[in-house]
Amino acid sequence: MAKKVAMIGAGAIGRAYAICFSRGGYEVSMFDPVDGAAEASIPRMRETAEDLEAEDFLNGHSADAVMGRISIAPTTEAAVDGAVHVQENAPEKLELKKKIFAELDALCPPDVVLASSTSTIVASMWSDGLPGKHRCMVAHPTNPPYAVRLIEIVPAPWTDSALVAATRTLFEEIGLVPITLKKEILGFIMNRFQAPILHEAYRLVAAGVATPGDVDLAMSEGISQRWSFIGPFEQRDINHDKGIRESSIRGEPLNRAIAETQRDLVPWDGPLVDYIEQERRKVLPMDQLQDRMRWRDKRLVALAKHKKWADENIK
Amino acid sequence: MAKKVAMIGAGAIGRAYAICFSRGGYEVSMFDPVDGAAEASIPRMRETAEDLEAEDFLNGHSADAVMGRISIAPTTEAAVDGAVHVQENAPEKLELKKKIFAELDALCPPDVVLASSTSTIVASMWSDGLPGKHRCMVAHPTNPPYAVRLIEIVPAPWTDSALVAATRTLFEEIGLVPITLKKEILGFIMNRFQAPILHEAYRLVAAGVATPGDVDLAMSEGISQRWSFIGPFEQRDINHDKGIRESSIRGEPLNRAIAETQRDLVPWDGPLVDYIEQERRKVLPMDQLQDRMRWRDKRLVALAKHKKWADENIK
Repeated sequence: MAKKVAMIGAGAIGRAYAICFSRGGYEVSMFDPVDGAAEASIPRMRETAEDLEAEDFLNGHSADAVMGRISIAPTTEAAVDGAVHVQENAPEKLELKKKIFAELDALCPPDVVLASSTSTIVASMWSDGLPGKHRCMVAHPTNPPYAVRLIEIVPAPWTDSALVAATRTLFEEIGLVPITLKKEILGFIMNRFQAPILHEAYRLVAAGVATPGDVDLAMSEGISQRWSFIGPFEQRDINHDKGIRESSIRGEPLNRAIAETQRDLVPWDGPLVDYIEQERRKVLPMDQLQDRMRWRDKRLVALAKHKKWADENIK
Repeated sequence: MAKKVAMIGAGAIGRAYAICFSRGGYEVSMFDPVDGAAEASIPRMRETAEDLEAEDFLNGHSADAVMGRISIAPTTEAAVDGAVHVQENAPEKLELKKKIFAELDALCPPDVVLASSTSTIVASMWSDGLPGKHRCMVAHPTNPPYAVRLIEIVPAPWTDSALVAATRTLFEEIGLVPITLKKEILGFIMNRFQAPILHEAYRLVAAGVATPGDVDLAMSEGISQRWSFIGPFEQRDINHDKGIRESSIRGEPLNRAIAETQRDLVPWDGPLVDYIEQERRKVLPMDQLQDRMRWRDKRLVALAKHKKWADENIK
């Protein structure tokens, strides 16, 4: 019999995580306290599962099989009953998370990991004081995790390192790529990479250096291409025939000088955002926004398939 | 008869640009003042052209046809004779660029654009005082431009806007993606996106938050995936069902708080870089560095082919 995972919260992240675990062979029991929310998530997950089946991206399973392993639980207690891992996907509100984790902690045996999908609220803030705080941690996915594999595992200072290691193994087993942050830090890593890119994008447009469209192209057709398969350290390392030491020392002055010009933040509001919004609406009418989001997810799946192929075939 | 482009400097960027122009149907005449350098570039370009032919990424041309349009010129004068565009790819030294552009300006008719591949030295620094300074600009590629399409066109304040527009058209014609910076700025856009990512990567390792390998994964399997086909503004825009205005206002506080923790720069040297270097050498021995660079370029070509397919097929 397949092992079971409890999914608390049936929003976009809960639904996508459910598919990841089910695709990986786990039973998933979903609970959402909002009346009808869990039930409403079923047809939406089925649509995603069918899209992924059409792309042969369900680990060899059919959409029916994947959906067959996902069920709705009437209560939190029923959802976590027998679960080997609990994944919380509630709104980003500290008091709510405290309440949910207190309940989960009371319901689950002490060796069951209680993980949050939060992107902003570190585990020490909602697990402090719980009897089972040692098994609490963040497991922050990239949206949607069935296409983008990175999971940021962020333990609290008191989280049991053996449970962190076991959680890494669990995510690896279902084909995701967990990394471990050794300390809690605002924004974890992905949002700490994203923030300065956003600040610079708004800054460049505010300074009249380029249009929003050209700023976007500098990313989407330029600097991001290498990043889509190698990280910043590897890039520095192979960019110089003597490796990362030489490339660090030689590259530091320019990069330090650039940082000096990136200290001021421009407000993300007012006439600047009016202008950016106008430019965006020229290329994407408001009523096509949802379609574009679906297009984005399709592109992410296609990229994931390409990367899988490239990892296996380009040596 | 094909139009001709002059390529001044036969280093990595000159060679890659030569293939782009030849693949796009142009004759390319290469000159390098270092004895034998231009001649030595021919077998290296042939190797690249053959790799691209094997990938069907030469615009339908054969490697022989592409190489047949590339020739070595004995002098700068011979290289630029009859050229419709001149692309300079010399080392990043201001005095050298001043000397080269003075010579090019004296040799070329006033409507021929003189463009530099520099990533750091703005056109106003080397074109000021030239009779033909109105036709000077930066056209900074991403390495290698036959795989990564973005070209940053950066005019000096006195550059003729009609010639900027014509240069955009020229790059579009050969399948590249030019953007125009309306003002000169340190690092242009791509290096201004790269600098804060690098600072944050070193900062995270210095603070003991994560290993260099996990920091790299946060980029290569995480946040970069969306960036590889949509820029930061589009991402913000489609991330909220009311578009970029709402998503800007809601997202600013977190991103501003993150920026406050990214003000200190750590030195790219000493024990920090010792440790990063050790970690890199565990996964990539020094004698495999050149192979990994070739692997990177193959991956970039494969990614470019994937994107072309996805642009045409995913709507």
